[in-house]
Amino acid sequence: MTMQSSFSEDDKRYMARAIELAKKGRFTTTPNPNVGCVLVKGDAVVGEGFHQVAGQGHAEVNALMMAGSQAFGATAYVTLEPCSHFGRTPPCAEGLKAAGVKKVIAAMVDSNPQVAGKGLKILADAGIEVAYGLLEEQARALNLGFFKRMEQGLPYVTCKMAASIDGKTALKNGQSKWITGPAARQDVQLYRAQSCAILTGADTVLMDDAKLNVRPEELPHSLPTDLPLRQPARVIIDSQNRLTPELALFSIQSEVIIFTTWVDKSHQWPHFVKQIEVPEKNNKVDLQAVLQKLAQLQFNNVWLEAGATLAGKMAELDLIDEFVFYIAPKLMGCDAKSLLNFPELMSMQNTINLTFNECVPIGDDLRITALKKAH
Amino acid sequence: MTMQSSFSEDDKRYMARAIELAKKGRFTTTPNPNVGCVLVKGDAVVGEGFHQVAGQGHAEVNALMMAGSQAFGATAYVTLEPCSHFGRTPPCAEGLKAAGVKKVIAAMVDSNPQVAGKGLKILADAGIEVAYGLLEEQARALNLGFFKRMEQGLPYVTCKMAASIDGKTALKNGQSKWITGPAARQDVQLYRAQSCAILTGADTVLMDDAKLNVRPEELPHSLPTDLPLRQPARVIIDSQNRLTPELALFSIQSEVIIFTTWVDKSHQWPHFVKQIEVPEKNNKVDLQAVLQKLAQLQFNNVWLEAGATLAGKMAELDLIDEFVFYIAPKLMGCDAKSLLNFPELMSMQNTINLTFNECVPIGDDLRITALKKAH
Repeated sequence: MTMQSSFSEDDKRYMARAIELAKKGRFTTTPNPNVGCVLVKGDAVVGEGFHQVAGQGHAEVNALMMAGSQAFGATAYVTLEPCSHFGRTPPCAEGLKAAGVKKVIAAMVDSNPQVAGKGLKILADAGIEVAYGLLEEQARALNLGFFKRMEQGLPYVTCKMAASIDGKTALKNGQSKWITGPAARQDVQLYRAQSCAILTGADTVLMDDAKLNVRPEELPHSLPTDLPLRQPARVIIDSQNRLTPELALFSIQSEVIIFTTWVDKSHQWPHFVKQIEVPEKNNKVDLQAVLQKLAQLQFNNVWLEAGATLAGKMAELDLIDEFVFYIAPKLMGCDAKSLLNFPELMSMQNTINLTFNECVPIGDDLRITALKKAH
Repeated sequence: MTMQSSFSEDDKRYMARAIELAKKGRFTTTPNPNVGCVLVKGDAVVGEGFHQVAGQGHAEVNALMMAGSQAFGATAYVTLEPCSHFGRTPPCAEGLKAAGVKKVIAAMVDSNPQVAGKGLKILADAGIEVAYGLLEEQARALNLGFFKRMEQGLPYVTCKMAASIDGKTALKNGQSKWITGPAARQDVQLYRAQSCAILTGADTVLMDDAKLNVRPEELPHSLPTDLPLRQPARVIIDSQNRLTPELALFSIQSEVIIFTTWVDKSHQWPHFVKQIEVPEKNNKVDLQAVLQKLAQLQFNNVWLEAGATLAGKMAELDLIDEFVFYIAPKLMGCDAKSLLNFPELMSMQNTINLTFNECVPIGDDLRITALKKAH
């Protein structure tokens, strides 16, 4: 079992295909990771599969099913180490072994402590040739949330912001409809649909009477899945118990989690609403504790769509992994509202530093993604 | 003489080459336009030229010189209608005629009222086949400033801004060194070197003790010109006569123009400083009048590098043609200073609307260009 440093062009091509397959699961696999598998015998692809939805067949199982007896003597390309444990399905390492594959190339080892090298070991112990480390970076990018949860006990938090090019999110009088155009708003729906939870503050819910749901009619027509889209859990920070059951948020019958410092029992909440008490920090909900709790609830990816106060606090606490800025070609002036509220900085050395990742046009707007800067 | 709608692939290729040649003059031709010329006989390029510096040979003259007797019977591709008037050099239309070219294809007609179709007419009247309208948009882009000055009596104004991704240009305490990285600052030098004038306010000069010059040592090594770079005129709006001769600005011996509402005679200025009185508007220099005056002084391209007040006022008055935003991957928070000061907007319908043109990485930063939205 070696962390191999050189692979053939064919190897790379098959693994790239496995990564493409894995991506098809990105709206549906949570809390499981996205995984793709390609089985190759000689020069022919004899099986392909990806993990579609938790509780159903893993990528390897689906690829083996397609390959049938042709799997015997084949090479399996998997974007993640095959699992070694009984979860809702039997271990894939055993499945590959039983099918008689000759070789398994995994893009990366699984950081899930239940696997963590054990899957590859089962294969190697059975005399199967094993290698890993092919297109690892791309494979890791498939499951940033899953790996962060496994490795740090925290979800991967992506903060969405929409602003004018002079960094303003609303006029002083509160008007903000619309800064960005319809294409950007559709793009937001696509991100929401890929998230496990949408996180915001009570302020945003009250101000916009926001539903915070995924609206399939606003999504592009050609999604890579036929499965019904999930509604991400809607997670609201409500330190002061200001939410009430009459809000539009609760007109959508899907999971809502309210984080508060003390559970107010005066309201009758619908069955899909859960209140969770977390410790207080400076009179507010402890945001680190909120994220830990969300990871315990198996949320991999949290989409933060909040106002300047909550987003600013999250940024200040270094709890945001990635920013998605939708920037409109507009100028709104100095009196308009700023993107992020955090305490005045006294030195340029204290700015919060990011790394730009990508900038693409979305309709008339730009979508700029930036990652937390490695410390 | 026809505005032709279809040209051959060869025609396009030769005109594209002429446009490439024209660009080589962009640091040196002002107040003249950038022009390139390619002479083709049969399948062979027999002459190439571009306008290098005002007062010296135009593109056609340089290409004819290279072609010599081979120009007879050739086709000339020029990025701009050949001139018809005696300026510092004789008319190019006459030169092409005398050389015996068979055909002239111009990318576009010159909007300079001294030419305006007369160049093409000279050629057509001499029995030379004439066409225009090939790659016109690219050819126009070579000389946005020259054409705006010819057509509207105003220079083309490009406003440079540097900000964090949350739209901030300095901390509340004034610190701003450095928001953007060295590559962005080098890129600014390149823009400055291509400008006829750098426009700013007395505030900026006083606050930063700025020199506002082109520093050749900060430019990329491979510039497309061997000619000495010009120092753009440094143009300062100083409504209240706050500048004094001791400032670092005046340590660089190159043109400075100070616009004021009344000329204060109490200072002894160096010989390269000119004070110009313009009418007052709301207790300040009338900015429209400033730009008209700069056009009269034959400035094509003005690079506005000012603070939030002057830039905001210029934006409010719709005097900016293009914005170049250098955006750093930093967050500075709500207390930091905003990009543009203009009066509070009461409705989203009153935002200043732009069109994004391009977004490219410059070092760790992004350079986003945006154009004034067509009304």
